[in-house]
Amino acid sequence: MTNAVPPTIGVFDSGFGGLTVLRALIERMSHARYAFLGDTARLPYGSKSRRTIARYAAESARFLVHDQGAEFLVIACNTASALALDAIQEAVSVPVLGVIEPGAAAARAASLTGDVLVIATDATVHSHAYAAACRALDLRALEKACPLLVPLVEEGWIDPGTPTSGVTAEVIRIYLAELTAEAAALGLNPDVLVLGCTHYPLLRPLLEAAVPAGVRVIDSAQAAAEAAAHIIDGRLSPGPAATAAATEIICFATDSVEKFERLGSRFLGRSVGKVQLVDLGG
Amino acid sequence: MTNAVPPTIGVFDSGFGGLTVLRALIERMSHARYAFLGDTARLPYGSKSRRTIARYAAESARFLVHDQGAEFLVIACNTASALALDAIQEAVSVPVLGVIEPGAAAARAASLTGDVLVIATDATVHSHAYAAACRALDLRALEKACPLLVPLVEEGWIDPGTPTSGVTAEVIRIYLAELTAEAAALGLNPDVLVLGCTHYPLLRPLLEAAVPAGVRVIDSAQAAAEAAAHIIDGRLSPGPAATAAATEIICFATDSVEKFERLGSRFLGRSVGKVQLVDLGG
Repeated sequence: MTNAVPPTIGVFDSGFGGLTVLRALIERMSHARYAFLGDTARLPYGSKSRRTIARYAAESARFLVHDQGAEFLVIACNTASALALDAIQEAVSVPVLGVIEPGAAAARAASLTGDVLVIATDATVHSHAYAAACRALDLRALEKACPLLVPLVEEGWIDPGTPTSGVTAEVIRIYLAELTAEAAALGLNPDVLVLGCTHYPLLRPLLEAAVPAGVRVIDSAQAAAEAAAHIIDGRLSPGPAATAAATEIICFATDSVEKFERLGSRFLGRSVGKVQLVDLGG
Repeated sequence: MTNAVPPTIGVFDSGFGGLTVLRALIERMSHARYAFLGDTARLPYGSKSRRTIARYAAESARFLVHDQGAEFLVIACNTASALALDAIQEAVSVPVLGVIEPGAAAARAASLTGDVLVIATDATVHSHAYAAACRALDLRALEKACPLLVPLVEEGWIDPGTPTSGVTAEVIRIYLAELTAEAAALGLNPDVLVLGCTHYPLLRPLLEAAVPAGVRVIDSAQAAAEAAAHIIDGRLSPGPAATAAATEIICFATDSVEKFERLGSRFLGRSVGKVQLVDLGG
Protein backbone atom coordinates (compact mmCIF):
# COMPACT_ATOMS: atom_id res chain seq x y z
CA MET A 1 0.00 0.00 0.00
CA THR A 2 1.38 3.38 -1.01
CA ASN A 3 0.01 6.64 0.34
CA ALA A 4 1.16 9.98 1.70
CA VAL A 5 -0.26 9.37 5.16
CA PRO A 6 2.29 7.83 7.50
CA PRO A 7 1.32 4.37 8.72
CA THR A 8 -0.06 3.95 12.25
CA ILE A 9 1.88 1.34 14.17
CA GLY A 10 0.44 0.06 17.43
CA VAL A 11 2.90 -0.92 20.14
CA PHE A 12 1.62 -2.76 23.16
CA ASP A 13 3.15 -3.61 26.53
CA SER A 14 1.82 -4.51 29.97
CA GLY A 15 3.79 -1.52 31.31
CA PHE A 16 6.25 0.96 29.87
CA GLY A 17 9.27 -1.32 29.38
CA GLY A 18 8.11 -1.76 25.79
CA LEU A 19 9.13 1.84 25.19
CA THR A 20 12.62 0.40 24.54
CA VAL A 21 11.05 -1.42 21.57
CA LEU A 22 9.30 1.79 20.46
CA ARG A 23 12.63 3.60 20.72
CA ALA A 24 14.27 1.00 18.47
CA LEU A 25 11.32 1.19 16.03
CA ILE A 26 11.62 4.99 15.75
CA GLU A 27 15.35 4.66 15.05
CA ARG A 28 14.47 2.47 12.06
CA MET A 29 11.16 4.06 10.97
CA SER A 30 10.93 7.71 11.93
CA HIS A 31 8.16 8.34 9.41
CA ALA A 32 5.23 6.80 11.25
CA ARG A 33 2.48 7.53 13.73
CA TYR A 34 3.02 5.38 16.82
CA ALA A 35 0.25 4.56 19.27
CA PHE A 36 1.72 2.98 22.40
CA LEU A 37 -0.48 1.37 25.03
CA GLY A 38 0.82 0.35 28.44
CA ASP A 39 -1.74 -1.74 30.34
CA THR A 40 -0.37 -0.41 33.62
CA ALA A 41 -3.59 -1.00 35.57
CA ARG A 42 -3.13 -4.73 35.20
CA LEU A 43 0.65 -5.15 35.22
CA PRO A 44 2.68 -7.12 35.85
CA TYR A 45 1.49 -9.75 33.40
CA GLY A 46 4.48 -11.81 34.57
CA SER A 47 2.72 -13.17 37.64
CA LYS A 48 -0.62 -13.92 35.98
CA SER A 49 -2.05 -16.97 34.26
CA ARG A 50 -2.08 -17.54 30.50
CA ARG A 51 -5.89 -17.19 30.38
CA THR A 52 -5.83 -13.83 32.18
CA ILE A 53 -2.91 -12.51 30.12
CA ALA A 54 -4.62 -13.55 26.86
CA ARG A 55 -7.79 -11.69 27.80
CA TYR A 56 -5.94 -8.52 28.85
CA ALA A 57 -3.70 -8.55 25.76
CA ALA A 58 -6.61 -9.12 23.35
CA GLU A 59 -8.53 -6.17 24.87
CA SER A 60 -5.44 -3.98 24.55
CA ALA A 61 -4.82 -5.03 20.93
CA ARG A 62 -8.44 -4.22 20.00
CA PHE A 63 -8.05 -0.74 21.48
CA LEU A 64 -4.96 -0.06 19.34
CA VAL A 65 -6.48 -1.41 16.13
CA HIS A 66 -10.15 -0.43 16.45
CA ASP A 67 -9.87 2.84 18.39
CA GLN A 68 -6.45 4.04 17.23
CA GLY A 69 -6.40 2.69 13.69
CA ALA A 70 -3.18 0.71 14.00
CA GLU A 71 -2.35 -1.10 10.74
CA PHE A 72 0.41 -3.15 12.32
CA LEU A 73 0.91 -4.33 15.90
CA VAL A 74 4.17 -4.90 17.71
CA ILE A 75 3.76 -6.79 20.99
CA ALA A 76 6.58 -5.15 22.93
CA CYS A 77 6.10 -7.41 25.94
CA ASN A 78 7.87 -10.71 26.29
CA THR A 79 5.20 -12.18 28.57
CA ALA A 80 2.35 -11.32 26.20
CA SER A 81 4.40 -12.47 23.21
CA ALA A 82 5.12 -15.73 24.99
CA LEU A 83 1.62 -16.44 26.27
CA ALA A 84 -0.86 -14.49 24.18
CA LEU A 85 0.37 -14.01 20.60
CA ASP A 86 -2.26 -16.45 19.28
CA ALA A 87 -5.03 -14.74 21.25
CA ILE A 88 -3.99 -11.32 19.92
CA GLN A 89 -3.80 -12.57 16.32
CA GLU A 90 -7.34 -13.94 16.73
CA ALA A 91 -8.59 -10.67 18.26
CA VAL A 92 -7.49 -8.35 15.44
CA SER A 93 -7.11 -8.59 11.68
CA VAL A 94 -3.83 -6.68 11.20
CA PRO A 95 -0.35 -8.25 11.17
CA VAL A 96 1.01 -8.87 14.69
CA LEU A 97 4.69 -9.29 15.58
CA GLY A 98 5.98 -10.38 18.98
CA VAL A 99 9.49 -10.07 20.42
CA ILE A 100 10.31 -13.76 20.97
CA GLU A 101 10.84 -14.98 17.40
CA PRO A 102 12.94 -11.95 16.37
CA GLY A 103 15.05 -12.42 19.52
CA ALA A 104 15.60 -16.08 18.71
CA ALA A 105 16.42 -15.26 15.08
CA ALA A 106 19.01 -12.69 16.17
CA ALA A 107 20.53 -15.26 18.51
CA ARG A 108 20.68 -17.74 15.63
CA ALA A 109 22.50 -15.19 13.49
CA ALA A 110 25.00 -14.41 16.26
CA SER A 111 25.75 -17.85 17.67
CA LEU A 112 28.52 -20.09 16.38
CA THR A 113 28.17 -22.80 19.04
CA GLY A 114 24.36 -23.06 18.81
CA ASP A 115 24.05 -22.67 22.59
CA VAL A 116 22.36 -19.55 23.97
CA LEU A 117 21.47 -18.15 27.39
CA VAL A 118 18.19 -16.27 27.93
CA ILE A 119 17.35 -14.05 30.89
CA ALA A 120 13.75 -12.90 31.38
CA THR A 121 10.91 -12.55 33.88
CA ASP A 122 9.40 -15.50 35.73
CA ALA A 123 6.40 -15.83 33.42
CA THR A 124 8.43 -15.66 30.21
CA VAL A 125 10.81 -18.33 31.50
CA HIS A 126 8.01 -20.57 32.72
CA SER A 127 6.38 -20.36 29.28
CA HIS A 128 9.63 -21.67 27.72
CA ALA A 129 8.71 -19.62 24.65
CA TYR A 130 12.35 -18.70 24.01
CA ALA A 131 13.48 -22.30 24.32
CA ALA A 132 10.81 -23.35 21.81
CA ALA A 133 11.63 -20.53 19.37
CA CYS A 134 15.34 -21.32 19.66
CA ARG A 135 14.77 -25.05 19.20
CA ALA A 136 12.88 -24.31 15.97
CA LEU A 137 16.07 -22.61 14.75
CA ASP A 138 18.29 -25.48 15.88
CA LEU A 139 19.60 -23.62 18.94
CA ARG A 140 19.82 -24.99 22.46
CA ALA A 141 18.61 -22.35 24.93
CA LEU A 142 19.00 -22.24 28.71
CA GLU A 143 16.56 -19.80 30.33
CA LYS A 144 16.76 -18.08 33.73
CA ALA A 145 14.24 -15.90 35.54
CA CYS A 146 15.81 -12.75 37.02
CA PRO A 147 12.92 -11.16 38.97
CA LEU A 148 15.07 -8.51 40.67
CA LEU A 149 16.22 -6.81 37.48
CA VAL A 150 12.94 -5.05 36.62
CA PRO A 151 12.57 -3.38 40.04
CA LEU A 152 16.27 -2.40 39.99
CA VAL A 153 15.75 -0.69 36.62
CA GLU A 154 12.58 1.01 37.85
CA GLU A 155 14.43 2.19 40.97
CA GLY A 156 17.03 3.72 38.61
CA TRP A 157 19.97 1.86 40.14
CA ILE A 158 21.55 1.45 36.72
CA ASP A 159 24.24 4.05 36.03
CA PRO A 160 27.68 2.40 36.05
CA GLY A 161 29.98 3.83 38.69
CA THR A 162 27.29 4.85 41.19
CA PRO A 163 27.04 3.07 44.59
CA THR A 164 23.48 1.90 43.87
CA SER A 165 24.50 0.40 40.52
CA GLY A 166 27.04 -1.64 42.50
CA VAL A 167 24.08 -3.51 43.98
CA THR A 168 22.66 -4.09 40.51
CA ALA A 169 26.06 -5.28 39.26
CA GLU A 170 26.23 -7.76 42.17
CA VAL A 171 22.70 -9.04 41.46
CA ILE A 172 23.67 -9.50 37.79
CA ARG A 173 26.88 -11.27 38.84
CA ILE A 174 24.92 -13.72 41.03
CA TYR A 175 22.30 -14.43 38.36
CA LEU A 176 24.89 -14.92 35.59
CA ALA A 177 27.11 -17.10 37.80
CA GLU A 178 24.13 -19.37 38.52
CA LEU A 179 23.20 -19.45 34.85
CA THR A 180 26.68 -20.17 33.49
CA ALA A 181 27.26 -22.84 36.16
CA GLU A 182 24.05 -24.54 35.09
CA ALA A 183 25.06 -24.27 31.43
CA ALA A 184 28.43 -25.87 32.18
CA ALA A 185 26.75 -28.67 34.12
CA LEU A 186 24.59 -29.37 31.06
CA GLY A 187 27.65 -29.42 28.79
CA LEU A 188 26.57 -26.28 26.93
CA ASN A 189 29.02 -23.81 25.45
CA PRO A 190 26.95 -20.63 25.12
CA ASP A 191 28.21 -17.66 23.11
CA VAL A 192 25.05 -15.51 23.20
CA LEU A 193 22.98 -13.95 26.00
CA VAL A 194 19.47 -12.93 24.94
CA LEU A 195 17.79 -10.10 26.88
CA GLY A 196 14.25 -11.47 27.04
CA CYS A 197 12.66 -8.54 28.87
CA THR A 198 12.08 -5.01 27.61
CA HIS A 199 13.51 -3.51 30.81
CA TYR A 200 16.88 -5.13 30.34
CA PRO A 201 18.27 -2.89 27.55
CA LEU A 202 18.72 -0.23 30.26
CA LEU A 203 21.09 -2.67 32.00
CA ARG A 204 23.11 -3.32 28.85
CA PRO A 205 26.35 -1.63 30.04
CA LEU A 206 26.25 -3.56 33.34
CA LEU A 207 25.41 -6.80 31.54
CA GLU A 208 28.12 -6.34 28.91
CA ALA A 209 30.60 -5.89 31.75
CA ALA A 210 29.43 -9.06 33.50
CA VAL A 211 29.08 -11.65 30.75
CA PRO A 212 31.93 -14.13 30.29
CA ALA A 213 34.40 -13.35 27.51
CA GLY A 214 33.16 -14.49 24.12
CA VAL A 215 29.46 -14.13 24.97
CA ARG A 216 27.53 -11.59 22.87
CA VAL A 217 24.53 -9.73 24.28
CA ILE A 218 21.46 -9.78 22.00
CA ASP A 219 18.54 -7.44 22.69
CA SER A 220 15.09 -8.76 21.72
CA ALA A 221 13.74 -5.21 21.59
CA GLN A 222 16.22 -4.25 18.87
CA ALA A 223 15.71 -7.52 17.04
CA ALA A 224 11.92 -7.05 17.05
CA ALA A 225 12.24 -3.48 15.78
CA GLU A 226 14.45 -4.64 12.91
CA ALA A 227 12.01 -7.40 12.00
CA ALA A 228 9.05 -4.99 12.17
CA ALA A 229 10.82 -2.41 10.00
CA HIS A 230 11.57 -5.09 7.44
CA ILE A 231 7.93 -6.26 7.29
CA ILE A 232 6.41 -2.76 7.40
CA ASP A 233 8.72 -1.42 4.71
CA GLY A 234 7.24 -3.97 2.36
CA ARG A 235 3.61 -3.42 3.33
CA LEU A 236 3.06 0.12 4.49
CA SER A 237 5.70 2.15 2.70
CA PRO A 238 4.59 5.78 2.46
CA GLY A 239 4.72 7.84 -0.70
CA PRO A 240 7.62 10.23 -1.36
CA ALA A 241 5.54 13.28 -0.39
CA ALA A 242 5.38 12.09 3.17
CA THR A 243 8.98 11.24 3.87
CA ALA A 244 9.74 14.58 5.47
CA ALA A 245 7.03 14.20 8.11
CA ALA A 246 8.13 13.88 11.72
CA THR A 247 7.53 10.95 14.03
CA GLU A 248 4.24 11.17 15.88
CA ILE A 249 3.97 9.40 19.22
CA ILE A 250 0.86 9.09 21.34
CA CYS A 251 1.04 7.14 24.60
CA PHE A 252 -1.86 5.59 26.49
CA ALA A 253 -1.87 3.94 29.91
CA THR A 254 -4.66 2.20 31.78
CA ASP A 255 -3.47 3.56 35.16
CA SER A 256 -0.53 5.23 36.91
CA VAL A 257 -0.06 7.89 34.24
CA GLU A 258 2.26 9.75 36.63
CA LYS A 259 4.73 6.84 36.95
CA PHE A 260 4.57 6.25 33.19
CA GLU A 261 5.45 9.89 32.48
CA ARG A 262 8.16 9.96 35.16
CA LEU A 263 9.99 6.76 34.13
CA GLY A 264 8.93 6.40 30.51
CA SER A 265 11.33 8.95 29.03
CA ARG A 266 14.27 6.96 30.44
CA PHE A 267 13.12 3.99 28.36
CA LEU A 268 12.13 5.94 25.25
CA GLY A 269 15.21 8.15 25.23
CA ARG A 270 12.98 11.23 24.75
CA SER A 271 9.93 12.71 26.44
CA VAL A 272 6.83 10.52 26.30
CA GLY A 273 4.71 13.68 26.33
CA LYS A 274 1.29 13.76 27.95
CA VAL A 275 0.14 10.19 28.58
CA GLN A 276 -3.59 9.63 28.09
CA LEU A 277 -5.55 7.52 30.56
CA VAL A 278 -7.76 4.88 28.95
CA ASP A 279 -10.19 2.54 30.70
CA LEU A 280 -10.26 -0.99 29.26
CA GLY A 281 -12.41 -2.27 32.14
CA GLY A 282 -11.18 -4.87 34.55
CA MET B 1 -22.01 -12.77 70.94
CA THR B 2 -21.28 -16.09 72.63
CA ASN B 3 -21.55 -19.41 70.81
CA ALA B 4 -19.71 -22.69 70.36
CA VAL B 5 -18.95 -22.09 66.71
CA PRO B 6 -15.57 -20.46 66.22
CA PRO B 7 -15.79 -17.02 64.64
CA THR B 8 -14.92 -16.58 60.97
CA ILE B 9 -12.32 -13.88 60.45
CA GLY B 10 -11.68 -12.60 56.96
CA VAL B 11 -8.15 -11.52 56.12
CA PHE B 12 -7.54 -9.68 52.89
CA ASP B 13 -4.40 -8.75 50.98
CA SER B 14 -3.56 -7.87 47.40
CA GLY B 15 -1.08 -10.74 47.44
CA PHE B 16 0.20 -13.19 50.03
CA GLY B 17 2.34 -10.85 52.13
CA GLY B 18 -0.66 -10.47 54.43
CA LEU B 19 -0.06 -14.05 55.51
CA THR B 20 2.39 -12.51 58.03
CA VAL B 21 -0.66 -10.79 59.57
CA LEU B 22 -2.62 -14.05 59.51
CA ARG B 23 0.32 -15.76 61.20
CA ALA B 24 0.29 -13.15 63.97
CA LEU B 25 -3.50 -13.46 64.29
CA ILE B 26 -3.30 -17.24 64.71
CA GLU B 27 -0.65 -16.83 67.42
CA ARG B 28 -3.14 -14.70 69.35
CA MET B 29 -6.43 -16.39 68.40
CA SER B 30 -5.96 -20.03 67.48
CA HIS B 31 -9.66 -20.77 67.99
CA ALA B 32 -11.06 -19.30 64.79
CA ARG B 33 -11.89 -20.06 61.20
CA TYR B 34 -9.74 -17.86 58.95
CA ALA B 35 -10.66 -17.07 55.35
CA PHE B 36 -7.72 -15.42 53.61
CA LEU B 37 -8.07 -13.84 50.18
CA GLY B 38 -5.08 -12.74 48.10
CA ASP B 39 -6.18 -10.71 45.09
CA THR B 40 -3.16 -11.98 43.16
CA ALA B 41 -4.72 -11.45 39.72
CA ARG B 42 -4.67 -7.71 40.28
CA LEU B 43 -1.56 -7.18 42.41
CA PRO B 44 0.41 -5.14 43.02
CA TYR B 45 -2.04 -2.57 44.34
CA GLY B 46 1.00 -0.43 45.07
CA SER B 47 1.27 0.91 41.53
CA LYS B 48 -2.44 1.56 40.98
CA SER B 49 -4.69 4.56 41.56
CA ARG B 50 -6.87 5.09 44.63
CA ARG B 51 -10.06 4.62 42.58
CA THR B 52 -8.90 1.29 41.17
CA ILE B 53 -7.62 0.02 44.52
CA ALA B 54 -10.89 0.97 46.24
CA ARG B 55 -12.91 -0.97 43.67
CA TYR B 56 -10.70 -4.07 43.89
CA ALA B 57 -10.61 -4.02 47.70
CA ALA B 58 -14.39 -3.57 48.02
CA GLU B 59 -15.02 -6.54 45.71
CA SER B 60 -12.59 -8.65 47.74
CA ALA B 61 -14.18 -7.62 51.05
CA ARG B 62 -17.65 -8.53 49.77
CA PHE B 63 -16.39 -11.99 48.79
CA LEU B 64 -15.03 -12.62 52.30
CA VAL B 65 -18.15 -11.34 54.08
CA HIS B 66 -20.97 -12.42 51.74
CA ASP B 67 -19.52 -15.65 50.32
CA GLN B 68 -17.34 -16.79 53.23
CA GLY B 69 -19.36 -15.47 56.16
CA ALA B 70 -16.59 -13.40 57.72
CA GLU B 71 -17.81 -11.61 60.87
CA PHE B 72 -14.69 -9.46 61.12
CA LEU B 73 -12.30 -8.21 58.46
CA VAL B 74 -8.60 -7.53 58.81
CA ILE B 75 -7.14 -5.62 55.87
CA ALA B 76 -3.66 -7.15 55.89
CA CYS B 77 -2.41 -4.89 53.13
CA ASN B 78 -0.85 -1.53 53.82
CA THR B 79 -1.80 -0.10 50.43
CA ALA B 80 -5.47 -1.09 50.75
CA SER B 81 -5.52 0.09 54.38
CA ALA B 82 -4.02 3.40 53.29
CA LEU B 83 -6.19 4.02 50.26
CA ALA B 84 -9.37 1.98 50.56
CA LEU B 85 -10.37 1.49 54.22
CA ASP B 86 -13.35 3.83 53.78
CA ALA B 87 -14.48 2.08 50.60
CA ILE B 88 -14.25 -1.33 52.31
CA GLN B 89 -16.17 -0.13 55.37
CA GLU B 90 -18.90 1.15 53.03
CA ALA B 91 -18.96 -2.12 51.08
CA VAL B 92 -19.57 -4.46 54.04
CA SER B 93 -21.42 -4.25 57.36
CA VAL B 94 -18.93 -6.08 59.62
CA PRO B 95 -16.13 -4.40 61.61
CA VAL B 96 -13.05 -3.70 59.49
CA LEU B 97 -9.53 -3.16 60.83
CA GLY B 98 -6.56 -2.00 58.76
CA VAL B 99 -2.85 -2.18 59.58
CA ILE B 100 -1.98 1.52 59.56
CA GLU B 101 -3.60 2.72 62.81
CA PRO B 102 -2.36 -0.25 64.86
CA GLY B 103 1.14 0.31 63.48
CA ALA B 104 1.02 3.98 64.42
CA ALA B 105 -0.35 3.14 67.88
CA ALA B 106 2.48 0.65 68.48
CA ALA B 107 4.99 3.30 67.39
CA ARG B 108 3.39 5.75 69.83
CA ALA B 109 3.75 3.22 72.64
CA ALA B 110 7.41 2.54 71.79
CA SER B 111 8.72 6.02 71.03
CA LEU B 112 10.20 8.32 73.65
CA THR B 113 11.33 11.05 71.24
CA GLY B 114 8.08 11.21 69.28
CA ASP B 115 9.97 10.85 65.98
CA VAL B 116 9.46 7.69 63.91
CA LEU B 117 10.70 6.31 60.59
CA VAL B 118 8.37 4.36 58.30
CA ILE B 119 9.43 2.14 55.40
CA ALA B 120 6.79 0.90 52.97
CA THR B 121 5.88 0.49 49.30
CA ASP B 122 5.61 3.41 46.89
CA ALA B 123 1.82 3.63 47.08
CA THR B 124 1.67 3.48 50.89
CA VAL B 125 4.27 6.23 51.16
CA HIS B 126 2.58 8.41 48.54
CA SER B 127 -0.69 8.12 50.45
CA HIS B 128 1.05 9.52 53.58
CA ALA B 129 -1.38 7.39 55.58
CA TYR B 130 1.27 6.56 58.19
CA ALA B 131 2.26 10.21 58.54
CA ALA B 132 -1.38 11.14 59.10
CA ALA B 133 -2.02 8.32 61.60
CA CYS B 134 1.19 9.21 63.45
CA ARG B 135 0.34 12.92 63.49
CA ALA B 136 -3.03 12.09 65.07
CA LEU B 137 -1.03 10.47 67.91
CA ASP B 138 1.34 13.41 68.21
CA LEU B 139 4.21 11.64 66.46
CA ARG B 140 6.35 13.05 63.67
CA ALA B 141 6.83 10.41 60.96
CA LEU B 142 9.30 10.36 58.07
CA GLU B 143 8.29 7.86 55.38
CA LYS B 144 10.43 6.18 52.71
CA ALA B 145 9.46 3.96 49.79
CA CYS B 146 11.69 0.87 49.48
CA PRO B 147 10.47 -0.78 46.26
CA LEU B 148 13.29 -3.35 46.09
CA LEU B 149 12.48 -5.06 49.38
CA VAL B 150 9.35 -6.92 48.25
CA PRO B 151 11.04 -8.56 45.24
CA LEU B 152 14.08 -9.44 47.38
CA VAL B 153 11.78 -11.19 49.89
CA GLU B 154 9.94 -12.97 47.09
CA GLU B 155 13.27 -14.07 45.60
CA GLY B 156 14.11 -15.55 49.02
CA TRP B 157 17.36 -13.58 49.43
CA ILE B 158 16.69 -13.17 53.13
CA ASP B 159 18.59 -15.69 55.24
CA PRO B 160 21.37 -13.95 57.17
CA GLY B 161 24.82 -15.26 56.31
CA THR B 162 24.06 -16.33 52.73
CA PRO B 163 25.72 -14.54 49.76
CA THR B 164 22.35 -13.47 48.34
CA SER B 165 21.24 -11.97 51.66
CA GLY B 166 24.39 -9.85 51.46
CA VAL B 167 22.74 -8.05 48.54
CA THR B 168 19.59 -7.54 50.59
CA ALA B 169 21.62 -6.27 53.53
CA GLU B 170 23.34 -3.76 51.22
CA VAL B 171 19.99 -2.60 49.78
CA ILE B 172 18.70 -2.14 53.34
CA ARG B 173 21.87 -0.27 54.29
CA ILE B 174 21.43 2.15 51.34
CA TYR B 175 17.74 2.76 52.05
CA LEU B 176 18.28 3.29 55.80
CA ALA B 177 21.29 5.55 55.22
CA GLU B 178 19.18 7.74 52.92
CA LEU B 179 16.33 7.75 55.43
CA THR B 180 18.40 8.57 58.51
CA ALA B 181 20.31 11.28 56.61
CA GLU B 182 17.00 12.86 55.67
CA ALA B 183 15.77 12.58 59.26
CA ALA B 184 18.92 14.28 60.54
CA ALA B 185 18.54 17.07 57.96
CA LEU B 186 15.02 17.67 59.26
CA GLY B 187 16.25 17.77 62.86
CA LEU B 188 14.39 14.58 63.81
CA ASN B 189 15.63 12.17 66.44
CA PRO B 190 13.85 8.91 65.56
CA ASP B 191 13.84 5.97 67.95
CA VAL B 192 11.35 3.73 66.09
CA LEU B 193 11.30 2.15 62.62
CA VAL B 194 7.83 1.02 61.52
CA LEU B 195 7.64 -1.84 58.98
CA GLY B 196 4.79 -0.57 56.83
CA CYS B 197 4.61 -3.51 54.45
CA THR B 198 3.53 -7.07 55.18
CA HIS B 199 6.55 -8.50 53.36
CA TYR B 200 9.02 -6.79 55.67
CA PRO B 201 8.64 -9.03 58.76
CA LEU B 202 10.64 -11.63 56.81
CA LEU B 203 13.50 -9.11 56.71
CA ARG B 204 13.35 -8.43 60.43
CA PRO B 205 16.73 -10.02 61.31
CA LEU B 206 18.47 -8.04 58.52
CA LEU B 207 16.65 -4.85 59.49
CA GLU B 208 17.39 -5.27 63.23
CA ALA B 209 21.07 -5.61 62.30
CA ALA B 210 20.98 -2.46 60.16
CA VAL B 211 19.06 0.10 62.21
CA PRO B 212 21.08 2.66 64.18
CA ALA B 213 21.57 1.92 67.87
CA GLY B 214 18.58 2.96 69.95
CA VAL B 215 16.02 2.49 67.15
CA ARG B 216 13.34 -0.13 67.82
CA VAL B 217 11.71 -2.04 64.96
CA ILE B 218 7.89 -2.11 65.07
CA ASP B 219 5.96 -4.52 62.88
CA SER B 220 2.54 -3.32 61.70
CA ALA B 221 1.44 -6.91 61.06
CA GLN B 222 1.98 -7.81 64.72
CA ALA B 223 0.41 -4.60 65.91
CA ALA B 224 -2.69 -5.17 63.76
CA ALA B 225 -3.03 -8.75 65.00
CA GLU B 226 -2.88 -7.57 68.60
CA ALA B 227 -5.50 -4.89 67.96
CA ALA B 228 -7.76 -7.38 66.16
CA ALA B 229 -7.45 -9.94 68.95
CA HIS B 230 -8.39 -7.28 71.46
CA ILE B 231 -11.50 -6.21 69.52
CA ILE B 232 -12.58 -9.75 68.57
CA ASP B 233 -12.15 -11.06 72.12
CA GLY B 234 -14.79 -8.61 73.20
CA ARG B 235 -17.20 -9.20 70.32
CA LEU B 236 -16.91 -12.76 69.07
CA SER B 237 -15.68 -14.74 72.08
CA PRO B 238 -16.56 -18.41 71.65
CA GLY B 239 -18.26 -20.49 74.32
CA PRO B 240 -16.18 -22.78 76.56
CA ALA B 241 -17.19 -25.90 74.58
CA ALA B 242 -15.31 -24.64 71.57
CA THR B 243 -11.97 -23.67 73.05
CA ALA B 244 -10.32 -26.97 72.19
CA ALA B 245 -11.08 -26.68 68.48
CA ALA B 246 -8.17 -26.27 66.11
CA THR B 247 -7.45 -23.35 63.83
CA GLU B 248 -9.10 -23.63 60.45
CA ILE B 249 -7.48 -21.82 57.53
CA ILE B 250 -8.83 -21.55 54.03
CA CYS B 251 -6.90 -19.57 51.43
CA PHE B 252 -8.24 -18.08 48.22
CA ALA B 253 -6.36 -16.40 45.41
CA THR B 254 -7.63 -14.71 42.27
CA ASP B 255 -4.70 -16.00 40.20
CA SER B 256 -1.24 -17.57 40.43
CA VAL B 257 -2.28 -20.25 42.92
CA GLU B 258 1.03 -22.01 42.27
CA LYS B 259 3.15 -19.04 43.38
CA PHE B 260 0.87 -18.49 46.38
CA GLU B 261 1.29 -22.11 47.49
CA ARG B 262 5.05 -22.08 46.83
CA LEU B 263 5.87 -18.84 48.69
CA GLY B 264 2.93 -18.56 51.07
CA SER B 265 4.13 -21.04 53.66
CA ARG B 266 7.30 -18.96 54.15
CA PHE B 267 5.08 -16.05 55.20
CA LEU B 268 2.56 -18.06 57.20
CA GLY B 269 5.15 -20.20 58.99
CA ARG B 270 3.13 -23.33 58.15
CA SER B 271 1.63 -24.88 55.02
CA VAL B 272 -1.06 -22.77 53.36
CA GLY B 273 -2.70 -25.98 52.16
CA LYS B 274 -4.58 -26.17 48.88
CA VAL B 275 -5.27 -22.62 47.69
CA GLN B 276 -8.63 -22.16 45.95
CA LEU B 277 -8.88 -20.07 42.81
CA VAL B 278 -11.71 -17.53 42.85
CA ASP B 279 -12.79 -15.23 40.02
CA LEU B 280 -13.77 -11.73 41.13
CA GLY B 281 -13.95 -10.49 37.51
CA GLY B 282 -11.63 -7.89 36.06
